[in-house]
Amino acid sequence: MPDKVRLHPAIDDGVVAGSESFSGGTLTCLCTDRPVKVRIDGQVAHNHACGCTKCWKPAGAIFSIVAVAPTANVHVTENGDKLAVVDPSALIQRHACKACGAHMHGPVERDHAFKGLTFVHTELSKDKGWQAPQFAAFVSSVIESGVPPREMDGIRGRIREVGLEPYDCLSPALMDVLATFAARKAGMLRE
Amino acid sequence: MPDKVRLHPAIDDGVVAGSESFSGGTLTCLCTDRPVKVRIDGQVAHNHACGCTKCWKPAGAIFSIVAVAPTANVHVTENGDKLAVVDPSALIQRHACKACGAHMHGPVERDHAFKGLTFVHTELSKDKGWQAPQFAAFVSSVIESGVPPREMDGIRGRIREVGLEPYDCLSPALMDVLATFAARKAGMLRE
Repeated sequence: MPDKVRLHPAIDDGVVAGSESFSGGTLTCLCTDRPVKVRIDGQVAHNHACGCTKCWKPAGAIFSIVAVAPTANVHVTENGDKLAVVDPSALIQRHACKACGAHMHGPVERDHAFKGLTFVHTELSKDKGWQAPQFAAFVSSVIESGVPPREMDGIRGRIREVGLEPYDCLSPALMDVLATFAARKAGMLRE
Repeated sequence: MPDKVRLHPAIDDGVVAGSESFSGGTLTCLCTDRPVKVRIDGQVAHNHACGCTKCWKPAGAIFSIVAVAPTANVHVTENGDKLAVVDPSALIQRHACKACGAHMHGPVERDHAFKGLTFVHTELSKDKGWQAPQFAAFVSSVIESGVPPREMDGIRGRIREVGLEPYDCLSPALMDVLATFAARKAGMLRE
């Protein structure tokens, strides 16, 4: 019997529901010495599995799990001197620990629908109650990380099996937000 | 009772099945004087509704219906002097009739997963048997043409009602083709 398709440790055994009353927590990088710590006030939103090649993933995972929080709610509290921006030209300014490589916070600062939001990986926190992943984004992009194309049916099937809907871009709600932003900029929004 | 959501005349009353034995036909632009004619040998593939802002649509439609054929099978047979490329910088070199505006053929000539294919609108042909639309692509993009965001639920619902699956990019199969091409170029394809 073939092994189950492994997506990411946080969802491979099923998606864990978040807590309605969750009030925030702290992300810690993988370093045992002088770990970077980032406090997030309040809950995250739009948590999802992401197949893009740029998001940070734990070893062996083919998807990342990534959410957003208002940038004003995200605070580097310890050892911020270890952080560096992975790609200054990218929309998401991913601040990674130079020692362990974990991405600790990724604000969007450019004029964009997501401006004012910061991308974070709640799996870097031991606190319980973070929002559960809601969908899987950029699924086809895992091929660009080296996943054989013939495995895609199994991967999409497994994503549905754990209770998420697979998309090859973002979710319809977020794609509508992006299109609305573009329409507003182009003067095409009639209301 | 509110009117039914109108997507495109070719699918508003249901999707019409194509013919397995269809052997090709001729597209004619909207001009009554000296119409441009384009012959396509054989059937088209990947026919779909498209919400992007660049594809040609008949008046009043919020989606276009567009398919591909091998470029070698597409021949301008009459009045090709009336054609001009809409946007020479675009991936799809859309050749439009300068008089009526209809896009008659759009070859992909650049190094790309779709190189060697030409985009065509079979609704410009009176021949019967063309492949039916298979899915709806770039659905969220209709907002960029002026569709109010609050209408999107109704639009996605109506797309499903006529038997098509709505995507905000291309279909999973085509997105995998694009990712496979990117992976091959980047040397990431293991097989």
